[in-house]
Amino acid sequence: MASHVPAMKDKIKIPESAIRRLSLYHRHLASLQSLGVETISSREIATVYGLAPFQVRKDLSYFGTFGHRGRGYSIIKLREKIGKILGLDRAWTMALVGAGNIGMAVFRYQELRSQGFKIAAVFDSDPKKIGKKLESGVVIKALDQIPHEVQRLGIELGVLAVPSEAAQAAADSLTAAGVKAILCFPSGQINVPKDVAVKRVNLGVDLETLSYFLTNR
Amino acid sequence: MASHVPAMKDKIKIPESAIRRLSLYHRHLASLQSLGVETISSREIATVYGLAPFQVRKDLSYFGTFGHRGRGYSIIKLREKIGKILGLDRAWTMALVGAGNIGMAVFRYQELRSQGFKIAAVFDSDPKKIGKKLESGVVIKALDQIPHEVQRLGIELGVLAVPSEAAQAAADSLTAAGVKAILCFPSGQINVPKDVAVKRVNLGVDLETLSYFLTNR
Repeated sequence: MASHVPAMKDKIKIPESAIRRLSLYHRHLASLQSLGVETISSREIATVYGLAPFQVRKDLSYFGTFGHRGRGYSIIKLREKIGKILGLDRAWTMALVGAGNIGMAVFRYQELRSQGFKIAAVFDSDPKKIGKKLESGVVIKALDQIPHEVQRLGIELGVLAVPSEAAQAAADSLTAAGVKAILCFPSGQINVPKDVAVKRVNLGVDLETLSYFLTNR
Repeated sequence: MASHVPAMKDKIKIPESAIRRLSLYHRHLASLQSLGVETISSREIATVYGLAPFQVRKDLSYFGTFGHRGRGYSIIKLREKIGKILGLDRAWTMALVGAGNIGMAVFRYQELRSQGFKIAAVFDSDPKKIGKKLESGVVIKALDQIPHEVQRLGIELGVLAVPSEAAQAAADSLTAAGVKAILCFPSGQINVPKDVAVKRVNLGVDLETLSYFLTNR
């Protein structure tokens, strides 16, 4: 389909929809924690997202037992545990390929930085952009620098924000240099090695779910 | 959940995943049509997206019978039919609230324009941005102009690209003025009337599906 995440060996396959809900729960727990709230029930989490409480309990159950029935969950512990599951207990350095409108919007997206995602390398093919120093001190480099920079910085996560025609070549450079997961904005087919995960972001497809709704309501 | 699309009365409920696949098929058919290809089989469509052919046939079957088994589908007819289903046989004027990095990236996103989505009104709270004329001739207006402009232009589709704290008020203005579908970038809860569809775009959640993958592989 649009996105492709390789199956994990010897592990329960957790649906992506559950992972996405855990991300949301994690955000909600963080905001409650900042307000000084200490415990929460699965019912309360469910209410926020319009879900059935059993769905919340099921999502959490993939990872073992959390909290105690009736007494609710400790927000600090639950947040910590979900954060660890999602890999948010560490920082992620990322490479961004494409410093156009979308790329720079991602680069400047504050929420990503606060979640531990930091863009440490930016690449573009435009000679007018190459050499430009961005706010964080990162200098835009040419595409042929991808292998060297990605390896030097040990980057595993890439963001592709190039036109569709340039997507395959950029994906090839990233994966050859060791990138194992790509957030991909261009539409169109890209092929990556089997052990690389690709998550598609397609605003056109998102908008068309809405035009479909407006057309067929 | 993250997104909320009201159920449609007296109609078969089509899963959002099927609508999203139809969007992808539509893109693929357009590119084949531009290459002069005339027919395609469900198997060929399936191969492009790594799907089972029966999945493609099932997605298309929601809307009646297309094509003929064995002979494949006429690309022109199939594209036209899917386009009509998705509401792409007409233009959509949209209102954008928030002219920051994300909002302007959406505004300048060429693919949306080519699919018939046109941002006809842009709003922001920043006095330095209000009055600024954008490339297409659209002038950024203050938030208090939302009701008047949205009604005057008959806008049904809104894009929310404001900080989370400002999201509810902006959503209220849009829906009060008649907007029935919102593409929503800020995270956090927003409440809309029951007949309004909200499609969430959350890059943080998308990235966390990848950090989850990298952590648990």
